[in-house]
Amino acid sequence: MNGIVRSALFTDFYELTMAQGYWKRRINEHRVVFDYFFRRQPFGGGYSVFAGLGTLLHALEGFHFSKKDLEYLDSLGVFDEDFLDYLAGFRFEGDIYAAKEGEIVFPHEPLLRVEGDLVQAQIIEGLVLNTLNFQSLIATKSARIWLASEKGRVMEFGLRRAQGSDGALSATRAAFIGGAYGSSNALAGKEFGIPVLGTMAHSWVMSFPSELEAFKAYAEIYPKSATFLIDTYNTLKSGLPNAITAGRDLAKKGYSFNVRLDSGDIDYLSRNVRQKLDEAGFHSSKIVVSNELDEAIIEHLVTSKAPIDVWGVGTNLVTGGNESAFTGVYKLAEIQSGAPTPGTMKPVMKFSDNPEKSTNPGTKRLFRLYNDGEYPRLDIMTLQDEMPKAGVSITVHHPSGDYRQLSIVPTKVEELLHQVMKNGTSSEQQPDLSQTRDYFISRVGAFDGTYLRQLNPHIYKVSISGKLKDMKLGLIKKYLRKC
Amino acid sequence: MNGIVRSALFTDFYELTMAQGYWKRRINEHRVVFDYFFRRQPFGGGYSVFAGLGTLLHALEGFHFSKKDLEYLDSLGVFDEDFLDYLAGFRFEGDIYAAKEGEIVFPHEPLLRVEGDLVQAQIIEGLVLNTLNFQSLIATKSARIWLASEKGRVMEFGLRRAQGSDGALSATRAAFIGGAYGSSNALAGKEFGIPVLGTMAHSWVMSFPSELEAFKAYAEIYPKSATFLIDTYNTLKSGLPNAITAGRDLAKKGYSFNVRLDSGDIDYLSRNVRQKLDEAGFHSSKIVVSNELDEAIIEHLVTSKAPIDVWGVGTNLVTGGNESAFTGVYKLAEIQSGAPTPGTMKPVMKFSDNPEKSTNPGTKRLFRLYNDGEYPRLDIMTLQDEMPKAGVSITVHHPSGDYRQLSIVPTKVEELLHQVMKNGTSSEQQPDLSQTRDYFISRVGAFDGTYLRQLNPHIYKVSISGKLKDMKLGLIKKYLRKC
Repeated sequence: MNGIVRSALFTDFYELTMAQGYWKRRINEHRVVFDYFFRRQPFGGGYSVFAGLGTLLHALEGFHFSKKDLEYLDSLGVFDEDFLDYLAGFRFEGDIYAAKEGEIVFPHEPLLRVEGDLVQAQIIEGLVLNTLNFQSLIATKSARIWLASEKGRVMEFGLRRAQGSDGALSATRAAFIGGAYGSSNALAGKEFGIPVLGTMAHSWVMSFPSELEAFKAYAEIYPKSATFLIDTYNTLKSGLPNAITAGRDLAKKGYSFNVRLDSGDIDYLSRNVRQKLDEAGFHSSKIVVSNELDEAIIEHLVTSKAPIDVWGVGTNLVTGGNESAFTGVYKLAEIQSGAPTPGTMKPVMKFSDNPEKSTNPGTKRLFRLYNDGEYPRLDIMTLQDEMPKAGVSITVHHPSGDYRQLSIVPTKVEELLHQVMKNGTSSEQQPDLSQTRDYFISRVGAFDGTYLRQLNPHIYKVSISGKLKDMKLGLIKKYLRKC
Repeated sequence: MNGIVRSALFTDFYELTMAQGYWKRRINEHRVVFDYFFRRQPFGGGYSVFAGLGTLLHALEGFHFSKKDLEYLDSLGVFDEDFLDYLAGFRFEGDIYAAKEGEIVFPHEPLLRVEGDLVQAQIIEGLVLNTLNFQSLIATKSARIWLASEKGRVMEFGLRRAQGSDGALSATRAAFIGGAYGSSNALAGKEFGIPVLGTMAHSWVMSFPSELEAFKAYAEIYPKSATFLIDTYNTLKSGLPNAITAGRDLAKKGYSFNVRLDSGDIDYLSRNVRQKLDEAGFHSSKIVVSNELDEAIIEHLVTSKAPIDVWGVGTNLVTGGNESAFTGVYKLAEIQSGAPTPGTMKPVMKFSDNPEKSTNPGTKRLFRLYNDGEYPRLDIMTLQDEMPKAGVSITVHHPSGDYRQLSIVPTKVEELLHQVMKNGTSSEQQPDLSQTRDYFISRVGAFDGTYLRQLNPHIYKVSISGKLKDMKLGLIKKYLRKC
């Protein structure tokens, strides 16, 4: 499939030098647990949409070093021949537990847990982060744009401004998950079954002796789906009258038409265009708009009731606009002690000079608790042997480990992580993208609107169990004694 | 090659519906000229670095519709069988003229000119824009970061935060062109011959019973290239003393070591670390820093003389940070008139309700004029039959077509566009990436520093010739009469 990397060289070089180090120390087969989580909601919002899992699992199943990859590594003069032989047999054979694609997620939650041997889990770090970070960023942006449009019709138009070929393909996939209903990207249509859409370019209009001839030619060829781009010369004085003239011919044949605005003051133009279309009797003609849209502009236009039917969003949707990266990281949470003979599993954590970069130790579960009618109330991370139960009171703690805590009796408990890969093989059929999009729509719909506000949202609570808190404090104390 | 798209479905869907329209109208083989240019310098700067050409030419040579691509198009029910047969034979067979990769470029300049038949030139639009926009964005960002470091040592560390797999690969390529001297991306090392680099991760430190044991193990395995990551627990109280202890063992064997800071106050920590390294006699140990760096932070640290030797830059370098897209567009400049019988070539332009979206008509040449010692003075676009000469006075005009003009006698004239593809085949060997990087370095070095300032730079003049101005005004008048 296009956009899927199979070369295990798609990794940071230090993963390979570290891998050789582990291998030389004979701790390469020690069991480890890594967590993928993110630190901060993007775009000033209150939620993110988890995406990229299907792409990641697909890539992991084929991830390996080709003969040429190994020859390249050999040429660097850093790796022993025996180690390269070992890499020749490298496949990811670990287990993965993850949230469902399309899930609504929050900072510090383990969204994907990798259990495997040290070298395997380490070498896939770059692939995990690259895939999940980008698609979660774009699915989140798409959700914001789609919600700003009041769950309207958002078309993804970003191929030409996307960050490279896979920047376009993966973005299209993620934008669809987050609510866009189609894309201009024909390859993404083929690869992912996403509806493909489009209108016409200015070059179409300029390829004919006049704008009217360009519209008439298009209407003749595509009578059922004519959307005229009316801003090549002058929207109100030229484009719209020509569209109406061409549209009258279509109306005689029983067909409708739409118009697209791609420059100028969208609010002003859309009202004028709507009024003139209505005056001409074309009440069912839709207005499509584009031109550097984002969720703020769309929210403003929707609030001011500009008569817009379809939103074509490119750059900001497929790149994230002014926030171009998701803050996901992949951190060691547990490791088998002893060298070279493997011993027991020990929880570990990173402390760091930036407190917000500290991690949560151990193998964890993640639950969503409801206690307020149908709305999710808070999420909680627990250790492996814990499970909150509906109807049973539970005390939850602030993840920083400080004194803040809260007791609730959940009316419903959902476990958010599910096994998706066993010994390197996807353990179940992944849902198709339409199902994933439907899942996102149902999940985002369950949240109270205050959490979904574009700016200054209500902060959804992510907490830890008492046991996890105790483990964390224990490690901190042990570390402080050492220092 | 990884990251190269070969499917001609990598295009906006409307290119294909328009292509069928041209084909049905029998104007598909009309000759056209398209220009690639951008509208606005990114990052508030005064220059951009043109990049992506090598990738584009490579992709164009293989661009075609596979049998599965055509089956997919057929399944949409929009395309005639005859047209799909025509697409089965689609190859790009046009001519391309372009600036050299690594060139310093300015808004509205035609950086790449495509001459070909209408359908071929149209279908490649998405590929052209996607490839050139992204790599030019990143090469420009890299140049800014590299200049901020006072042409220091910048390592590209962005794979995990890049926008998809090709977002990482293409970004690494472009970052190298723009001055970075190496990358952590092992696959990019193999594909492009870029030096690969790296230190160690926090997980290495956490995989050993203690930080000191982790450092000692690394030093034993890689005595010649040990860079200790010293912020896993506490930089000054734990990481640095342990690095010095492990470093003393290395010193006994005649090896040096370096340290890396990845969190905390880089200015404060780097000074403290430098002082303590010097006190311990490790004057040659280098300090590598990372953690969400960009050109503003680097410029600040350089100005305050923080003792930093190597800059590891990830997210902001490979995504552009808060500016995630380059404003490049691909616009029709000339087209053969007549339908279906092809007639003469006619210049065309787009007007638009946003004046800055108007284009420059005709087939154009681009020159750089020098008249002030060795510094470039201004660039000028001309028509095909014009060529400024050294020692001969020339009057240049403001590109908006208004009254502003200026006469200069250039001491040197450079033509910036060169033929790089003829009938769909690359017309010469493309330079290797090191040569492209050297070219960038020499070209950026030729500009007066006022144009290279990070913010509020001096604006370099881009002008048009009298003939081009007359053509543009003529088209505008003709258009205004029509309206």
